[in-house]
Amino acid sequence: MSVALLSDFMAGLGHKGFNFLSRTREETKRDIASLCDSLVSGRGEISCFVIAEAIFQRWEMLDAGQRRACLGSLSKRFAPDAEAIQRHIKAIEKYPSPENFYQLHAISEPRAQELIRRLNHARNGTRRLVQMREVLLDALTTDRSLEGLDRDFVHLFTSWFNRGFLQLKPINWDTPASILEKVIRYEAVHAITDWDDLRRRIEPEDRRLFAFFHPQMHDEPLIFVEVALTTAIPGDIAGVLRPDRTIVPRDEATTAVFYSISNCQMGLRGISFGNVLIKQVVEELRRDLPSLRAFVTLSPAPDFARWLTHLRTDSGQSILSASDIALLAKASVNGWERDTDLLKELNPLLRGLAVRYFTQAKNRQNRPFDSVARFHLGNGASLENIHAMADVSPKGLATSYGLMVNYLYKTGEIETNHENYAENGTIAISGRLKTLLKHVTSK
Amino acid sequence: MSVALLSDFMAGLGHKGFNFLSRTREETKRDIASLCDSLVSGRGEISCFVIAEAIFQRWEMLDAGQRRACLGSLSKRFAPDAEAIQRHIKAIEKYPSPENFYQLHAISEPRAQELIRRLNHARNGTRRLVQMREVLLDALTTDRSLEGLDRDFVHLFTSWFNRGFLQLKPINWDTPASILEKVIRYEAVHAITDWDDLRRRIEPEDRRLFAFFHPQMHDEPLIFVEVALTTAIPGDIAGVLRPDRTIVPRDEATTAVFYSISNCQMGLRGISFGNVLIKQVVEELRRDLPSLRAFVTLSPAPDFARWLTHLRTDSGQSILSASDIALLAKASVNGWERDTDLLKELNPLLRGLAVRYFTQAKNRQNRPFDSVARFHLGNGASLENIHAMADVSPKGLATSYGLMVNYLYKTGEIETNHENYAENGTIAISGRLKTLLKHVTSK
Amino acid sequence: MSVALLSDFMAGLGHKGFNFLSRTREETKRDIASLCDSLVSGRGEISCFVIAEAIFQRWEMLDAGQRRACLGSLSKRFAPDAEAIQRHIKAIEKYPSPENFYQLHAISEPRAQELIRRLNHARNGTRRLVQMREVLLDALTTDRSLEGLDRDFVHLFTSWFNRGFLQLKPINWDTPASILEKVIRYEAVHAITDWDDLRRRIEPEDRRLFAFFHPQMHDEPLIFVEVALTTAIPGDIAGVLRPDRTIVPRDEATTAVFYSISNCQMGLRGISFGNVLIKQVVEELRRDLPSLRAFVTLSPAPDFARWLTHLRTDSGQSILSASDIALLAKASVNGWERDTDLLKELNPLLRGLAVRYFTQAKNRQNRPFDSVARFHLGNGASLENIHAMADVSPKGLATSYGLMVNYLYKTGEIETNHENYAENGTIAISGRLKTLLKHVTSK
Amino acid sequence: MSVALLSDFMAGLGHKGFNFLSRTREETKRDIASLCDSLVSGRGEISCFVIAEAIFQRWEMLDAGQRRACLGSLSKRFAPDAEAIQRHIKAIEKYPSPENFYQLHAISEPRAQELIRRLNHARNGTRRLVQMREVLLDALTTDRSLEGLDRDFVHLFTSWFNRGFLQLKPINWDTPASILEKVIRYEAVHAITDWDDLRRRIEPEDRRLFAFFHPQMHDEPLIFVEVALTTAIPGDIAGVLRPDRTIVPRDEATTAVFYSISNCQMGLRGISFGNVLIKQVVEELRRDLPSLRAFVTLSPAPDFARWLTHLRTDSGQSILSASDIALLAKASVNGWERDTDLLKELNPLLRGLAVRYFTQAKNRQNRPFDSVARFHLGNGASLENIHAMADVSPKGLATSYGLMVNYLYKTGEIETNHENYAENGTIAISGRLKTLLKHVTSK
Repeated sequence: MSVALLSDFMAGLGHKGFNFLSRTREETKRDIASLCDSLVSGRGEISCFVIAEAIFQRWEMLDAGQRRACLGSLSKRFAPDAEAIQRHIKAIEKYPSPENFYQLHAISEPRAQELIRRLNHARNGTRRLVQMREVLLDALTTDRSLEGLDRDFVHLFTSWFNRGFLQLKPINWDTPASILEKVIRYEAVHAITDWDDLRRRIEPEDRRLFAFFHPQMHDEPLIFVEVALTTAIPGDIAGVLRPDRTIVPRDEATTAVFYSISNCQMGLRGISFGNVLIKQVVEELRRDLPSLRAFVTLSPAPDFARWLTHLRTDSGQSILSASDIALLAKASVNGWERDTDLLKELNPLLRGLAVRYFTQAKNRQNRPFDSVARFHLGNGASLENIHAMADVSPKGLATSYGLMVNYLYKTGEIETNHENYAENGTIAISGRLKTLLKHVTSK
Repeated sequence: MSVALLSDFMAGLGHKGFNFLSRTREETKRDIASLCDSLVSGRGEISCFVIAEAIFQRWEMLDAGQRRACLGSLSKRFAPDAEAIQRHIKAIEKYPSPENFYQLHAISEPRAQELIRRLNHARNGTRRLVQMREVLLDALTTDRSLEGLDRDFVHLFTSWFNRGFLQLKPINWDTPASILEKVIRYEAVHAITDWDDLRRRIEPEDRRLFAFFHPQMHDEPLIFVEVALTTAIPGDIAGVLRPDRTIVPRDEATTAVFYSISNCQMGLRGISFGNVLIKQVVEELRRDLPSLRAFVTLSPAPDFARWLTHLRTDSGQSILSASDIALLAKASVNGWERDTDLLKELNPLLRGLAVRYFTQAKNRQNRPFDSVARFHLGNGASLENIHAMADVSPKGLATSYGLMVNYLYKTGEIETNHENYAENGTIAISGRLKTLLKHVTSK
Repeated sequence: MSVALLSDFMAGLGHKGFNFLSRTREETKRDIASLCDSLVSGRGEISCFVIAEAIFQRWEMLDAGQRRACLGSLSKRFAPDAEAIQRHIKAIEKYPSPENFYQLHAISEPRAQELIRRLNHARNGTRRLVQMREVLLDALTTDRSLEGLDRDFVHLFTSWFNRGFLQLKPINWDTPASILEKVIRYEAVHAITDWDDLRRRIEPEDRRLFAFFHPQMHDEPLIFVEVALTTAIPGDIAGVLRPDRTIVPRDEATTAVFYSISNCQMGLRGISFGNVLIKQVVEELRRDLPSLRAFVTLSPAPDFARWLTHLRTDSGQSILSASDIALLAKASVNGWERDTDLLKELNPLLRGLAVRYFTQAKNRQNRPFDSVARFHLGNGASLENIHAMADVSPKGLATSYGLMVNYLYKTGEIETNHENYAENGTIAISGRLKTLLKHVTSK
Repeated sequence: MSVALLSDFMAGLGHKGFNFLSRTREETKRDIASLCDSLVSGRGEISCFVIAEAIFQRWEMLDAGQRRACLGSLSKRFAPDAEAIQRHIKAIEKYPSPENFYQLHAISEPRAQELIRRLNHARNGTRRLVQMREVLLDALTTDRSLEGLDRDFVHLFTSWFNRGFLQLKPINWDTPASILEKVIRYEAVHAITDWDDLRRRIEPEDRRLFAFFHPQMHDEPLIFVEVALTTAIPGDIAGVLRPDRTIVPRDEATTAVFYSISNCQMGLRGISFGNVLIKQVVEELRRDLPSLRAFVTLSPAPDFARWLTHLRTDSGQSILSASDIALLAKASVNGWERDTDLLKELNPLLRGLAVRYFTQAKNRQNRPFDSVARFHLGNGASLENIHAMADVSPKGLATSYGLMVNYLYKTGEIETNHENYAENGTIAISGRLKTLLKHVTSK
C-alpha cells in the first residue's frame, strides 16, 4: 500500500532527473562541510533531501582516514555556538525569566543536532546515520574531541529509537532470507555456522527467535533473542543446541530458556533495548504458550576468571585456602576440562567461589562485578543456579572456567527484585544458592 | 507479522494481571504530578510503560478544567532547572571548555522533555501525546505561561515526525472504512457531506487522494491532499466537484489539480508536512501517469476581502478610484453574486485588484499578505491564474469575493522559484498575469 | 507480492497492444458462437485468454434478449455429442471393458464444460461466469431447454467452489469500503439502511460478521452471517438491533446469536455454503471467546402463514377449533399487532400452532414444511424456542404472524441430531417445547 | 486477515475436541476403503472434513506397499458403475432425449471423482491429493489397471489448476526461506548447490526468478523459470552462471534469457503450466524493463545424441559420410571435449547435423524429435541459434554432445509461428540457421 518516499524516486530518476537534481550534482563537487552548511542554513526545505543525499553519497566515497578527518571537521564546525551562549548567559544574568531559560536550551543546542535531523531526510537516512556513527565510535577510541558529536548522535537516536516506536517480530523459517542472513551474521554469543544451523534454531516447534525492528529500518534487526522451550531448566549449552535432541511438543513445554541475546547495530551502542526485549518476549510467550511456568536464561559469567586472577594475586587470602589455590592452578593445564578426577574436586570449589563472586564481588558503583549479572539482576531477575562445566568452548573455559548461570524471571517478583536492587543493591538468589552460600562462607 | 507491544498485553491483562500492575493501580490513586515524578526519576525502566499508562488513564478521566490545571502544574514542575543552570553558568565562566558547553545543553533541557519521551512508552503513546497537546494549544490561548511546555512538545514532535519517518499512502475505495471516516471528518476545505460524496472523490479513475501517515499512528492520517485529473486547468471548484461531470480516462489526463489540502491532527499544529506532501504526490503522479503535463492547485484567496477592507478604509486612495469603491460597495448586497450585469463590471475590477494583492500586498516580513500564497510561492510554485466567481459558497464570497487562484508547480522551475522567493521575496507569475498587472498598474 | 495475470496486462495494453491482440480484435467482429468454437477447438492455448476475453466483451455488449438467444444457441451447439456417444455405446456393447467405461465418461461430457473451463482464462473469468449464470437462471424460468447448460455450470462451480478452496474472513470496520458496500447491498434478511447502520453491526465489540470468499473473487463475498454476542438467548429481533442497547463486554458474552445469513451471488444458486459457514464460524467464535456457551439463531418462520392458510381452508378442522379460527381472523385487521388485549389471547394460540407446525407439518419428502427449519435441523441444530411478536415488520407479520424461532447448535449434539434427522427425519426439540407440544396436542 | 479453515481448528482441538470428532476416532479404526464409502455416501456434509481427515491420516501411516494396495482397491471400488451405465444405455436407446444424454454423463462419472472432491475438504486437502497422485504415478509404472483412477485425478486437477486460478509471483532474496529451500530442491536443469548459489541466481539486479502458485498451496511453487538479463544472446551456460561475471545494470539489459524451467510437483505431471508461465513472464519483464528487446531461451537438446546413435546404426548413410562417422567416433573418448584440434573439425559437423536434426528429425506425429524443441516451437518461438560446446557438464556431453540452443520469443511473431506450427508443422528458424541448413543440405 505504501508509496516509496520522494527520495527514492529522486534516486531512481537518474539522468532523466530534475533540474534541481542536476544542480545538486554540481554541489557534490563542493566539499561535504560546505554542503552541510547549506543543509543546516536550510534555504528552503525543498532541497533538504537532495542535499542530504549528496552529502551521504560523498561520504560513502571517502576512505577510512578521510571519514575520520571529515568527522573531526564537522565536530568543530557544528559544535555549540560558544559566543551566542555567552551572550545569552549575560542576558540571563540580567533577566532570569523562564522564557530566557527556555531559550538557553535552544541556543545551547549543538548545531550538529539540526544537521543530523536533516541528514535523516535522505533515502535510508536513519540507516546511513547509524552507519556513520559506527565510524564515529571507532574514531572516538583515539580522538576524544569527537565526544561532543557522539553525544548529539546519542541524543537523537535515543529519541528516535524510543521504545514506543520499536516493533517486536518473530523470526522463523517463513521470514525473508534477506533478514535471516543478518541473524546469521549478527549472532554474537553462540555462533550460527550456516543455514542448516540457523534452521535448527528457528524451525522446530520448541525454538523461538524474536527481534526488535524500527519502522525506518524494516529489514535490519536491532537486537534479537533466541529461546529454547524445554521441560526443565537446562544446565549446559551443548544440550540446548544438540541437533539430535528430542523436540518438545509445544503443549509440553514448561520452561522458556533465553540462551542468546545479540545486539545487531554497532552504531546504536549505548541505546539499550535488551531489558525491554526480554520483558516483551516473556509476555509474548506467556500469551502463546499458557503452559510455560519458568522464564530463565542460560548465561555466561564473562568476568569470573578475571576476578579469580585478582583474588589469587592479592586480596584473596581470606577466601582462598592454599589447597584451593593449588587446585585452581591445575585448571590452567591444557585439557584440564577432560580430567574427570580433577573435576570431581574442582567443580564444587568453582561453584562455591562463583556464589561468592555473584553475591559479594562488586564494582565501584557497588553493583555486581559481573556485567551480565548487572544486566539481568538490574532487570528484576534472580540468580537461580550455577553450573560447572556448562560451556567448555575455549572462550567459555578462558573467561569463566566453563561456568554458566541461570537467571530466573518470575512474574510475581520482577518488580520487587528490580526495586530492591535499584534502591539497596540487594541481589535476589534462589534457596539452593542461599544454602550453598551459607555453607561456603561458614567454612 | 508484527507482535503487539508489551503495553498492549498489559492493557489486556486486566484483573488477571501482574503484581507490578496491581502495584501500579495503587499508584493511579496518587496524583498525576507525583506519578510523573516517578516516571522521570525512573527507578528502572521496567515500570516505565506501566506508570506512563497510569498517567494517561488518570489524565483521560479529568474534565477540561482539571486538564488545564494539570498542564499548568506540570509546566512548572518540569520547567528548566534554573538553579542547576545557574550553577553551571558559573562553571562555564570559569572554564569555558567545549565539554562544559555540551553539558550546558543537557542541563538546560527542560525536564518536561524526558517526561514526554517516557510518556511515549504507553500504549498508543504518540497518539495520546498528540491529543494532550491539543488540550495544551487550547489552554495556551488564555495562559501564556504554558508556552515553554508547548515548546517541549514541538521540539520532540519535530524530531519524531521528521519527514524521514513519514509514509505516503494512497487512499481509495479499497481503504479500510475506519480510515475513510476520518477523511470525511477531517476535510477542512470543501466539506465531504457523506459516504457517497467521499466515494465520488476517491473511486473514479480521474480522482486521487494521498495522505501521510506515521508508523506509530498507522490508522490516523496526518495530512491529506485531494487531486482531480483533468484535461485543462480548471477555473472554478463547482466544475471540479460536479457529480455528473464526464470522467477523464487516465491516459487522457494532462493536468493534476490539487484542490484541497487538510491537516488532520490539531495536536501537530506547527509541525509542517504540506510542502513535502505536495512534492511527493507530484512525483507519485508523474511516475504513475506519464501523460501529466501540469500540476496546479485550485486555491482560495482567504485574506483578500480583509485586505480590500483595509484598502477602502485607509491607504487605498491611490489604488481605488471613487467608482471602484462604489462598485465594490454593491458587492455587499445579498445575492450580488447572481447579478450578472454587476458581475460584468465587477469581475475585471476584482481580478485587477487581486493581481495587485498577490504581488504587492505584503506582511511585516515582506512576504505576501495572503497565507495560502505564502505557502505555495514559498514552496516554489508560480501564480498561474486568478478566477472571479470561482467559489460562490458563503465562505468563498465572504473571504475572497468568490475568487480562486491556480498555483502552478512546474518541475523545471520549482527550485529556482523557491530560491528567488527565499532570497529576494520574488514572486513568480505567469505571462498572462504579468500582462494583466502591467495593464492595471499603468491605469 | 503477486503479479497480475497475463490477461490483466493484455487488457491494459489497449491500443499499444500486441499483434495477436489486434488479430483478436478482428475476431470480435465474428459472432460469439463462432468465437466459442475457436476457443474450444483450441488451436493452441496461447490465444485462449485472448479469445475468452473477446467472447466476454461481446457478451457484455448484448442486451437481455440477445443474451438469452445467445445462451440458447450455445446450449445447442455445446450439448453432448449424441452421435459420438451412440458410436461409443456400440463399442461398449461389444467390449464392455473398464477402459471403455472410462472413455464413455469423457465422450459424454457436454462440450459446454470445456467451453466454460476455457472462458475461465479471461480476466476475472470466474466472476464473469458467475454473472453469466445469473442470466442463465433467469432465462431458465421460461426456457427449460437451457437446463442442460445450467447443469454444466453447476458441475464446474461445484468443483471450483469446493469448500477446500473457500476462505473465511471476518468483516469489520477495518475492512475496505469496497467490500462493505457489498455487504450493505447483499443483506437479504434484515436490511442495512446506510453506513451508520452497517457500522452498528460490525464495529461494537459484541458484533461480528463473517464471510466466505473465493481466492479468484477476492473482493466479492459469497455468503455472510451476522452475529450478535449476548448474555441470553434473545426472543425478538428489535432488541438485538436496537442502536441504544448496552454493549456487552467481550468477556461477558455467553451466547452467540446468528441473526442473519445472506447469500450474495445469485449466479451461485444451488452451490450451498451455509452449513459449512455456520460451523466454521462456531469454531472461530469458540476459539476467540472461550466464555461462549450457546450458539443459536434468531430465525424467521417464513412459511408459517402459508401453512395456516392451508389449515383454515381445508384440512385444519382437526387442529383448529372454531374459536381458534375466529381468533386468527382478527389477526388480519390492520394494526392487530398493537392490540394488546387480542395478543394476550392470540400469542399462546400462535405458539401452540407453531410447535405443531415445526414438528408435524411436512413436505412431500417428509421433511419440515418450513424451509429455514429444513436448513438448520438438517444441519444438526435443535429447535430451542418459539417467540410470538418477535418480528413485527410488515414482512414478519405477513409471512409468520410475527413469530421468530431459535435454533440451537450444541456442540456435543450436532452430529447426532444431524444423523437422526437424516436417517429418520427426527426433529430435535428442547424440553420446554416438548412440554408445550404435549400440552397442545393433549387438548 | 484470513481465518484458518474449520479443519485446522478441528486438527487443533486434540483431546478437548468434539463429540463427533471422537466418534470419528473410532472410524479411523475402520479401514480406509470403508471410510471412503462413508465419505462418498455422505450422509451429511457436516462430517465430510472429519472423515476426509481420518482417511488421510490413515493413508499417511501406510508403507509403500500398502499404499499401492490401497490405490488398487480404491480404483476398483470407485470405478464407473458398469451396471448403472448399461441400464441407462438401454434407456437412451429407447429415448435418445437430450435429458438422457446429459444424465449419461453424470451416471458414467467414475465414483472416484466424487471421492477426490470430498477428500479435498481435509486440511491441506489439495496438497495431500497431489502427493497421493505421486504414489499413484509410481504405481502406474507396474500396474496399468490404475490408469482409470489416474484419469480421475487428471480430470479434477485440470479443473482445479485451471490457469484462471494460478498466481505468478517473483521469487527473490526477500522471499521466505521456507519457499527458497523448495526452489533449491526442485531446480531440475542446472542444480543449485547451496544457499550462496541460490543467492547469486535471485539477488543481483540482472537475475529474476518467477513461479506459479495455487491459492490452496501458497507455499509450494508449481513451476518456476530462471531468467538472466544480459546485453546479448548468450551461447553457453557457464558464462551465464559464472559467479564473477559483471552484473548488468537494469537499464542496460536488452535480452532476457530463460535458462531453466523446473516443474516442482511430481503429482501434477501432465497438467501443463510451462507455456503460460513463459508468456506471463515475458509480459511481466516487458512491463518492468522497457529496454528489453529479445526474449530467448538457452536450452538443452536432450535427444540429439540419441538421434545420432540411430543415424549411425541404420538410416544415416545418406546424411553421414564415412569421415563424419569416423570423426563422431572420436567424440566417445574420455576428455574429447578438451581436445581443441578435434573440436575445430567436430564443432562445424555437429552444428550442421543439429540444424538438420531440429528441422528434419520427426516423431510419429510428425513433430520435432526433440522434446524441448516441441515445447518451444509449439509455443510460438523460433529456433534462433545452435551452439557447440555450450554445456560441457557430463550430462550435457552425454545427451547432446555439448550443444545448446536458443529459442527466440519475438512478440510480433509468436502467434503466427504457433499457428503455422500447429496447422502445418512448420518450424520457424532464423536467417543464419537457414543459411547453415542450405549449406549443409547442398553438400
